[in-house]
Amino acid sequence: MDANEHLTQAAGAARDASRVLARSPATARNAALRAMGDALRERMHPILAANEADVAAYAGTAAFRDRLTLTPARVEAMAKGLEDVAELPDPLDRTLADWTRPNGLRIRRIAAPIGVIGMIYESRPNVGADASALCLKSGNAVILRGGSDSIRSAAEINAALQTGIAAAGLPPAAVQTAPNADRAYVAAMLAGAGLIDLIIPRGGKSLVERVQREARVPVLAHAEGLCHTYIHAAADPAMARRIVANAKMRRTGICGATETLLIDRAIAPGLLPSIVDDLRALGCDFRADTAARAIVPGLTAARDADFDTEWLDAILSVAVVDGVDGALAHIAHHGSEHTDAIITEDAAAADAFLRGVDSAVALWNASTQFCDGGEFGFGAEIGIATGRIHARGPVGLEQLTTYRYVVTGTGQIRP
Amino acid sequence: MDANEHLTQAAGAARDASRVLARSPATARNAALRAMGDALRERMHPILAANEADVAAYAGTAAFRDRLTLTPARVEAMAKGLEDVAELPDPLDRTLADWTRPNGLRIRRIAAPIGVIGMIYESRPNVGADASALCLKSGNAVILRGGSDSIRSAAEINAALQTGIAAAGLPPAAVQTAPNADRAYVAAMLAGAGLIDLIIPRGGKSLVERVQREARVPVLAHAEGLCHTYIHAAADPAMARRIVANAKMRRTGICGATETLLIDRAIAPGLLPSIVDDLRALGCDFRADTAARAIVPGLTAARDADFDTEWLDAILSVAVVDGVDGALAHIAHHGSEHTDAIITEDAAAADAFLRGVDSAVALWNASTQFCDGGEFGFGAEIGIATGRIHARGPVGLEQLTTYRYVVTGTGQIRP
Repeated sequence: MDANEHLTQAAGAARDASRVLARSPATARNAALRAMGDALRERMHPILAANEADVAAYAGTAAFRDRLTLTPARVEAMAKGLEDVAELPDPLDRTLADWTRPNGLRIRRIAAPIGVIGMIYESRPNVGADASALCLKSGNAVILRGGSDSIRSAAEINAALQTGIAAAGLPPAAVQTAPNADRAYVAAMLAGAGLIDLIIPRGGKSLVERVQREARVPVLAHAEGLCHTYIHAAADPAMARRIVANAKMRRTGICGATETLLIDRAIAPGLLPSIVDDLRALGCDFRADTAARAIVPGLTAARDADFDTEWLDAILSVAVVDGVDGALAHIAHHGSEHTDAIITEDAAAADAFLRGVDSAVALWNASTQFCDGGEFGFGAEIGIATGRIHARGPVGLEQLTTYRYVVTGTGQIRP
Repeated sequence: MDANEHLTQAAGAARDASRVLARSPATARNAALRAMGDALRERMHPILAANEADVAAYAGTAAFRDRLTLTPARVEAMAKGLEDVAELPDPLDRTLADWTRPNGLRIRRIAAPIGVIGMIYESRPNVGADASALCLKSGNAVILRGGSDSIRSAAEINAALQTGIAAAGLPPAAVQTAPNADRAYVAAMLAGAGLIDLIIPRGGKSLVERVQREARVPVLAHAEGLCHTYIHAAADPAMARRIVANAKMRRTGICGATETLLIDRAIAPGLLPSIVDDLRALGCDFRADTAARAIVPGLTAARDADFDTEWLDAILSVAVVDGVDGALAHIAHHGSEHTDAIITEDAAAADAFLRGVDSAVALWNASTQFCDGGEFGFGAEIGIATGRIHARGPVGLEQLTTYRYVVTGTGQIRP
């Protein structure tokens, strides 16, 4: 069976399963999530054995090998993650709006599942289990296509999850995985209009950009997080130093990490040297514009392209800007509409920045690393979206739903 | 300048304009809408002259010619429509959610414009003015590409609208129209990822399907409205007759018109003959399954494909089904996820139907022709959406917005 045939069959089964999930009570979906956790624990040995085979076949970097490797503790964490999702509030059947028309028709907008989601991801095997949990909880079926390096692990994890779902009386086809590492399967998913309702890619920029470029199906994703922190003239210097150090260096590899520091010309001479010292002490390097280098001699000169670069590393681009308008102009030109912050004690300046920046998340006096579903209180996230429609910022259970209208009447006809 | 160059330039100007609109107060956008109405009245003569040229060049049907033709009254109605949109509530800056995290971060989800919208439409010249009004009110810039038959009318209307916008101090590039009827411009719009944030096609099924098939940009649309009315065994017969007559025959050419009647086996013998009589008196023809023809001899036999046909005409497909599950199975197989109704006095049956049907709009004891932005109380609509994400059902001002997060802190860093 070729990839297209397989996907068509899988998506048909997923569609049927999604209809069952859509009508299922939260108790049934939560029971399934707990049973999925139990099944992961029961199948610990085959999962670890499959993962060992993946790791043995892997020929890449040590860092990636570590991300690929499962241990009993990591499988237990996956199982615990499924149970945690079971505890979250039900995102379905929420009444989002409810009004009555003069003719007596009552119109309710009600949260409903999207349908069949395609998840294309790289690296960590746990992403498949996490995504399965969030999709099932939100009443969606999911078809997973993990990285070729973790194909054996993904298959064993999926088999365990399906066992759990079936044990709880829901259709195991709610959570399926690609049968092999054939790249044609990705192409079939991207072409799957009518079969798949939404694709969520999660991985490096090149994967996400390929999905965005080729998909015939709506995509929820972010290709990059080129986040800015702007220190306004009226910033509290101590707060600015603390936030910038955290925004850049807490974890440099996440999409919410600050990549560019914009510092106001009025405050830069007094503050930039301390910030450079702070970050140097944490191992950070710099790419600075001419004005910044005039204040702190010896910084590496920034090329234009540096301000368009998501470093995902201990490197900070630095530009001196003139006021909120200067910061907004820089961000509009170089940003990725992901997450941008202003640090200031001036509420009017903050307001101008928060209104003017066109990003999914705009922060005032806080670290850009807060752009995260857990930090937002969503309990879990399946990714971050920087597109303009449906959902922006962290994508949690609510964002995995759509809505439908239920209109109740007493025999009304339209005049 | 070729189509791609023109679109790139137009979209750049639209992006700049959209940023101005996004920050503009509602008073400024409303003033622009009123000035746009005034400008349409002031430019009545050139608009009618351009329209005369379009009509003179037109060689198609009389019905279409009528839709194409503008009169002073129709131009006045367009102007009035712009003023009506000015009176609607501002869809921007609504706080959609607002919560505070244990660490003191306050997170607000706030309605924001989508950005640059591409509108591809056929037929009536007023659609361009209506779409311009709704996009501008919701803070979005729009690039319009109307039908080639109305190209001169569209250009004059657009020139008037731009005059009004400029008079109110907002950027006229907020509302632009394709420079000619070149089909390459449509292709450029469909390929405009990064330039256009959302495409809204409005027209016949073949136009919409082409857009859905070829677009590299998110699309909000419905290709067809294959709407069902299901008469349950416990329906009030008089109400069922009244609703079916309205749902089918009030206007047969709109997407919310009922195309298929599903009637319960238990009630069909007593009720179907009267319904056939009612509709025949209104000029309706039938395509009926075997069971329906056994009850009302002489009805035309339905071919399988008839149940997949959106007639948009005085023709009704009729099938006898067994209970709510039978109706849901028929709709899941043949429906278009647009609008479907149940008629019953049995609340439990209604609930099972309303939960089980996967359409944008599900109705109980009301006509499917209520699927309309005006009837929903939106004041106006730009179309109807049957996709699974962002917006479903009537697309009004709220649905032309997205959201962004504004997070305010007091120096929080992420642990």
